[in-house]
This record gives sequence, C-alpha cells and structure tokens, in this order.
Amino acid sequence: MKKGCKYGTHRVIEPKGTLPQPAWKIDNTMEIYDNEILIDVKTLNIDSASFTQIKEEAGGDIEKIKARILEIVEERGKHHNPVTGSGGMLVGEVKEIGPALQGKIDLKVGDKIATLVSLSLTPLKIYEILEVKPEIDQVHIKGEAILFESGIYAKLPEDMSETLALAVLDVAGAPAQTCKLVKPGNTVLIIGAGGKSGLLCLHQAKKMAGVTGKVIALEYSDEGCERIRKLNLADEIIQADATNAVEVLEKVSAVTDGKMADITINCVNIPKTEMASILATRDEGLIYFFSMATSFTAAALGAEGVGKDVTMIIGNGYTKNHAEIALETLRENPALREVFTQLYV
Amino acid sequence: MKKGCKYGTHRVIEPKGTLPQPAWKIDNTMEIYDNEILIDVKTLNIDSASFTQIKEEAGGDIEKIKARILEIVEERGKHHNPVTGSGGMLVGEVKEIGPALQGKIDLKVGDKIATLVSLSLTPLKIYEILEVKPEIDQVHIKGEAILFESGIYAKLPEDMSETLALAVLDVAGAPAQTCKLVKPGNTVLIIGAGGKSGLLCLHQAKKMAGVTGKVIALEYSDEGCERIRKLNLADEIIQADATNAVEVLEKVSAVTDGKMADITINCVNIPKTEMASILATRDEGLIYFFSMATSFTAAALGAEGVGKDVTMIIGNGYTKNHAEIALETLRENPALREVFTQLYV
Repeated sequence: MKKGCKYGTHRVIEPKGTLPQPAWKIDNTMEIYDNEILIDVKTLNIDSASFTQIKEEAGGDIEKIKARILEIVEERGKHHNPVTGSGGMLVGEVKEIGPALQGKIDLKVGDKIATLVSLSLTPLKIYEILEVKPEIDQVHIKGEAILFESGIYAKLPEDMSETLALAVLDVAGAPAQTCKLVKPGNTVLIIGAGGKSGLLCLHQAKKMAGVTGKVIALEYSDEGCERIRKLNLADEIIQADATNAVEVLEKVSAVTDGKMADITINCVNIPKTEMASILATRDEGLIYFFSMATSFTAAALGAEGVGKDVTMIIGNGYTKNHAEIALETLRENPALREVFTQLYV
Repeated sequence: MKKGCKYGTHRVIEPKGTLPQPAWKIDNTMEIYDNEILIDVKTLNIDSASFTQIKEEAGGDIEKIKARILEIVEERGKHHNPVTGSGGMLVGEVKEIGPALQGKIDLKVGDKIATLVSLSLTPLKIYEILEVKPEIDQVHIKGEAILFESGIYAKLPEDMSETLALAVLDVAGAPAQTCKLVKPGNTVLIIGAGGKSGLLCLHQAKKMAGVTGKVIALEYSDEGCERIRKLNLADEIIQADATNAVEVLEKVSAVTDGKMADITINCVNIPKTEMASILATRDEGLIYFFSMATSFTAAALGAEGVGKDVTMIIGNGYTKNHAEIALETLRENPALREVFTQLYV
C-alpha cells in the first residue's frame, strides 16, 4: 500500500506543488493510501453559493443539475465548483481505514460521519445520483470519497436528526472558540448575536463568563432581539446597526460604564463591521472575527487609525473538539435546541 | 473651548455617523478642541500608492502635482486620495496642546514629531507648498494639522536622520509585536525576512528567543538571503518562494526535525502566502500576519481545510511603545542600522 502525505498532496494531478484545495484536478482513484479513510457517501451538502450557481446555470432543470454535478466531479476529481470556487461537505459511512491510521483515530468501519473539510479538496466518485433536493442544497448519491489524514470529521450523533446536526456543524468553530476564549468575569460582546453562530456563541459565552461576567448581545433585527430575549441568553441586548461604528461605541459604552468589552466576537455576515468591533473593545482586549465578510486591511488599518492596542484573531473554522463542543451546546440548552429545530430543520 | 470626541468624530462633516477616516469630508478649522494637538507641519510623506497615482495623473508635472495636492485637501479637509483611498504620514512641530491632554501625554510645545496615524484621517491645512520631492514621495509645506486624542505619534529621535527614522517608523508595528510575542526557547519563522520589516523582526526574534530558541529566515531573493547571512540574524536561512506551500512545508520541516515553527511572522508583500504560513506552523502555534496582502478568507478557510488548530492574528500596526521599540532595534544593532542607511536613506 502506498504511503500518502498528511495533506493529500500525493493526489494532486495539476498543477503540481499545490495542495488539493487550490489544485485544478486531483486523483479520485478509490484505492486508499496507507493514511487515508474511504467513505461510502450518502449525501452531498453542496455549498449554498455553489448550488445556487449550478441551479441557475441549469435553469432549474433537475436533470441538468445532475449532469453538471457529474461533469464537475468527472473533470476535477472533486466537487469544486469552478465558478464559485466553493465546495460543501458530505455525509457517509466509513468503509475502510488505512493501516497507518488504525489505533490513532476514534473511528471504526461502519461509523456514520460528516466531513468538516470542504468538498473542494475531497477526492470523490459519484456512481449514481439518487435524488436532488434543491430546497436544502442536498444531493443523495451512491458514491465514494477519500478523507486525508489532516481531514477533519464529526461522528453524527444518535440523539439528533442529521439536518439539525449539520446545521450546527456548519458553524462549529464559533461556539468552540468562544468556549476556549472566554474566562470567568469577562465582559463579552457578540455582534450579530441573533443568527445561527451568534446564538451558539451567546450560550457558550454566558456559561464561561459565569455570574461575575457580562454578556452583551448586539443584533440588528427585531426577530433576532426577541429570540435572544426569550432564550435569556444575554445580560444586555443592544439593537443596533453594526456598520455604524459610532452608534455601537456609544451603546456599548453605556452598558459597560465606559469600560467596553474584554472580548468581542463578530458573527455578522455583512461587510464593514470591523470598526464597530474595534471601538467596542477595550484597550488590550481581544476581537475574534468569525465573519467571512471581514476585510483584513479594514481591521488592520482601522485599529492603527484609532491607536487601539487590541489583538485581532482571524476566525479559524477548526479548533480541537469543535464539533463535540458545538453539538453539546444544543444538548445543554433545550430551549435553544427547540429554536434551532424550528429555524434550520 | 469645545470638548472633542477621543476619535475625532466631532470633526466629521459628511457623512455623519462615520469616523474621520472613512468620512468624505472633515472640518479642518485650525482652532483646537480641548483634547486635540495642533501641529506646525513641515513635511508630508505621501503614501507611495497615492503619490504614484497623483504623479501619473499630473503627467509628472510638478506644478500640476502641487495643484492636485492642494485640491484634495481643499475638498476633503485632509490629504485622502479619493482614487487610492490612502494617505501617508506627516512630520512637524507641536504648536499647541489642548488643556484636557496636558499632563497626560509626554509632549511639549516645540517637540518634533511624526504622526503615526494616516493622513487620510488627519485634519490638514496647506498654506504653501515649498518643495515636492517626487523621488521619495515627500512634500515640504507650510501648513497646520490636528492630532486627535486617539492619534498616535512618535517623537523624532535626535540620534538619527529624519529619513532613517521615518523608514523605521513606517513599519514600527512588526518588530514591536515580534518583541512582545516571542518567548525564550521559541522556534520562530519569519517569512519575507530580507525586507524592511522582516529584518527588524529577525533582530527582535533572535533577541527574545534567546540561545535556546531558533530563528528561521525565509526569503525569496538572493540579495535578501545574502543580507541576512552577513548580518548573522538567523540560525537558519531558507531560500524559497512563499507562494509554494508544499516547498515551504518541506524545507521548514527539514530544519526543525518535523516540529515546525511555534510562531510564524509573515512580512511578505505579495498575495497567496497564507497556506505556507499555516503549514509551516505547529499545531496550537501562532501566526502573525503583518502583510497587507493577506486574505482573511484564504487564511480562515486554509487552516480549516488542513485541520490546523493555529491562532492567526491580524497584524495591528499599533501596539504600545511600538515606535520606541522599532527605533531601539536600530540602536541595538549597528550593522543593521548601516544596512538601513544604505537601503532606505
């Protein structure tokens, strides 16, 4: 059996010297290297941007959507949409584990898992498309895929539906990082607190900050604020537009007696909220940008422009045990689980 | 005397609710608020991108360059190039200090300072342009400017030329952050080590990592590598292209026995070096992105894609005492000072 690279570079066909994600084409031969996992794939959860693009290109015709999905995988060895650059994730059963991994991982043949690395780097073969569910961007298939040694995954829990688990796993990094960052007594500000990742972060922040801490939820929409109020997830709720830095500064100052937040977690999905995050955080405080709409230069130059000595962290979608922490969040908070079931299942 | 906002929002004319930097027009009346500093401006150091744009628009004609500079300041109340969005910095003498700041800052009237916040947020009036120096992007003027309470500055040192001091102050954040991050025994990788900020970071990294630490310089050019070698600033020098993640991974692995770097500091001025930084850093290590060419999403999705639990920090151009630390770097290392004098003066 051939020995593979931890990051899967042994499967890159072109261009050579790149990693599987940026590569144009990877080898999707379904014979594993010694450090790979073979997965019997049941469902592809196509990234929303990618699925929308394929659907539009196909004029909504299901047969044409199927043909385009097969064509992409045929051409690139992975489901990596060449227009949007994005992939998605997959659900399947472990079929074979490379000998170099045995005893090192907590998986056995037959386990049902979701891969938490992008389809845009995952070797995939589709034997048959069984069903396309355009309303939830899912495709049921007969197929196989390879997970590299560095690839991350989560065992699907038995106590919640697959759809609910996937909704949480999709944003697993945010609550897990919150859980690791927040210390007892901290004043924590969550921006975009009423959304999927924001609600999970609120729960973890409140738990970790404890009775001596203070959790402030900042949310734009009426429904979001009402949701947070009903779930009793924050000590203070501020309704404000996070692109208005001055308004945020004043409102956060008011509820913290001018002390501002020790830790700010940005979960907003719109651009131009960097400055509000910076002004709302105290000197030598910490800002964790989970939002993919964050601009690196806006954050870097923004902090310098106001002379703010803050540590600004690029949200890493992965941290150890992130899937377990995220799923546990719903188990710890049945009311939150109920809201998630209503909103995302 | 009127009371001002720490961040200068009291001077924003339009649009209201923004900060001075993103504002289109600010009030450049040279009558100070209680928390402002009035500066007698001698020199504008126009941002390189901005100066190049103005020079091209003016067809290289010095009189037209002068006219365009005056026009921008007249229109916006600050030297904020509407095409490039960038500003620059200024040098001048302290003329008046607002009463609310007296005793709180280490400045007195007559001190010669460089402002370390962008001209794109600094209220400015130009009374006369004395000389344009297109080869070093400098403009000598008679004029006045306002520094806000949150505005950062550095007193110009008496033991080095203004040009040398400015060359260092321009990248002051990098060596200062390196000095604060690196601990004895750390393995530190500097990517883009042969450039201006890279060399300053190498010196600080070597000093802080101490005899039990290891400093690795990664540099693309022959001249850069030779410079590092002659200055004896690194324990290991790797000549490589930082956009080739696999090559960087292999070479850093080779000099660290597969342990990889505890801390990676990215000082490269080209895009697509995020993945090399991530792969070169050990699990639970730290990456500090000083490069303005860093892509937030490439870093965030890149780390997730390879399942790397690293802390990635957005380089903040400001940290406490950054100017002093940066200038001190040259005093501590006369050979490095000599190289800086040759290259940047």
